[in-house]
Amino acid sequence: MTSGQPVSPGHLYGVGVGPGDPELMTLKAQRVITTCAVVAHFAARNRPGNAWTIVEDLVAPHQEVLRLEYPVTTEAVTKDSYESSIAAFYDESAARVAAQLDAGRDVAVICEGDPFLYGSYMYVHQRLASTHPTTVVPGVPAFAAATAATGRPLVSMDEHLTIVPAVRTASEMKETLASSPASVVMKVGRRLPEVVDAAEAVGIADRAVYVERASTGAEKVMPLLEARDQNAPYFSLVLFPGEAIDQRWSGR
Amino acid sequence: MTSGQPVSPGHLYGVGVGPGDPELMTLKAQRVITTCAVVAHFAARNRPGNAWTIVEDLVAPHQEVLRLEYPVTTEAVTKDSYESSIAAFYDESAARVAAQLDAGRDVAVICEGDPFLYGSYMYVHQRLASTHPTTVVPGVPAFAAATAATGRPLVSMDEHLTIVPAVRTASEMKETLASSPASVVMKVGRRLPEVVDAAEAVGIADRAVYVERASTGAEKVMPLLEARDQNAPYFSLVLFPGEAIDQRWSGR
Repeated sequence: MTSGQPVSPGHLYGVGVGPGDPELMTLKAQRVITTCAVVAHFAARNRPGNAWTIVEDLVAPHQEVLRLEYPVTTEAVTKDSYESSIAAFYDESAARVAAQLDAGRDVAVICEGDPFLYGSYMYVHQRLASTHPTTVVPGVPAFAAATAATGRPLVSMDEHLTIVPAVRTASEMKETLASSPASVVMKVGRRLPEVVDAAEAVGIADRAVYVERASTGAEKVMPLLEARDQNAPYFSLVLFPGEAIDQRWSGR
Repeated sequence: MTSGQPVSPGHLYGVGVGPGDPELMTLKAQRVITTCAVVAHFAARNRPGNAWTIVEDLVAPHQEVLRLEYPVTTEAVTKDSYESSIAAFYDESAARVAAQLDAGRDVAVICEGDPFLYGSYMYVHQRLASTHPTTVVPGVPAFAAATAATGRPLVSMDEHLTIVPAVRTASEMKETLASSPASVVMKVGRRLPEVVDAAEAVGIADRAVYVERASTGAEKVMPLLEARDQNAPYFSLVLFPGEAIDQRWSGR
């Protein structure tokens, strides 16, 4: 800044970039990502970051890229210690984003799927939305792409659907799966064996479908009981179609 | 067809066009809609159809538009009679789509939100997917746009979320809302009073948010208890954020 004028703050965008196929990004996500001065993304150590992989071809050399690298992976910590153990990391990430906003730059924080459906953007939003102009751009959630990949819906018109993050104990998962006609367990990763155990305990393992990296070239779709030994990535999920759907659609 | 050659069948696409803002369509939805010979959509009698309104600027004069008009609205029938009462309509709709496919034309059946999340496309898919090449293009669900509009998520990282279609009895709704830390009631429409009753019976009405036509110019967001007397459209929903989120985020 060469002038002494106060800088008008940049705008914070939480942008859902969809399940993996760049073509499943929304027109709005594409516009926001290509017009923001800064594109920020979370990534695990030694990995490019899934959200980044989806958008990198869109980002121009003049745009600044803010890589927010997790000190630990969500899979390496227990449910109870998860939020507390990386709170400091989210504080620091929010501060790095805020510094850009306060310098007058618009920042797009990109997120796989939908930002408010278990997306790490939530932590940045929580820290900055009360002090900075903010817009959340919804995206196509992974479970919608996974369901599309199986070729049949999870629920009929009058059944409810429960979305369960796998960062839970086996008994909590069992309870939740038992109480809903249809469910999706998200972010399965290393908890795949616990998901299989819970599904078998509830008696719905036989109609469950395992989906990995939905909508990407690396997509895998298989019956849960054949997926037991998969080295499931964090971005894998398990679909539990409702009984009515399972029977009505079992022809194919 | 002037030649005697057999016609290779067209491809059926179930295309989610997102919650309402045309910019929340995916790049893939836009490509499929603009390249199919036929664009089919459901609509209520005397209405243009919400999905159609979202895409109409994309459709060119040379494309054929197949309007599939409901004999009844979902609101005018009870949950029990719903599927049966319009089964014949879905049979006829599927037959009209099949006739286009069998003539070698690709057909995009468009749907608000995501096709497999309570979208009428499900009924066409169920009737044609075993006999015709089919692809489902997932879309941004209305609940994601509604949540984005409220400026805060519904769930923290370890809570589950339940999506409930309002085509249920008040007691079923009560039971479901009571059993989940956070919920979304979709397609509220004329059942708004029952949703309010269920929310009050469960004791979560005070933190519930009513959202109408999320992401469109006609979007409305207000506390459920102030929405009692709204003439809620079919495409309205009620968000029930988890208690933890509600407390942690109540600062704004």
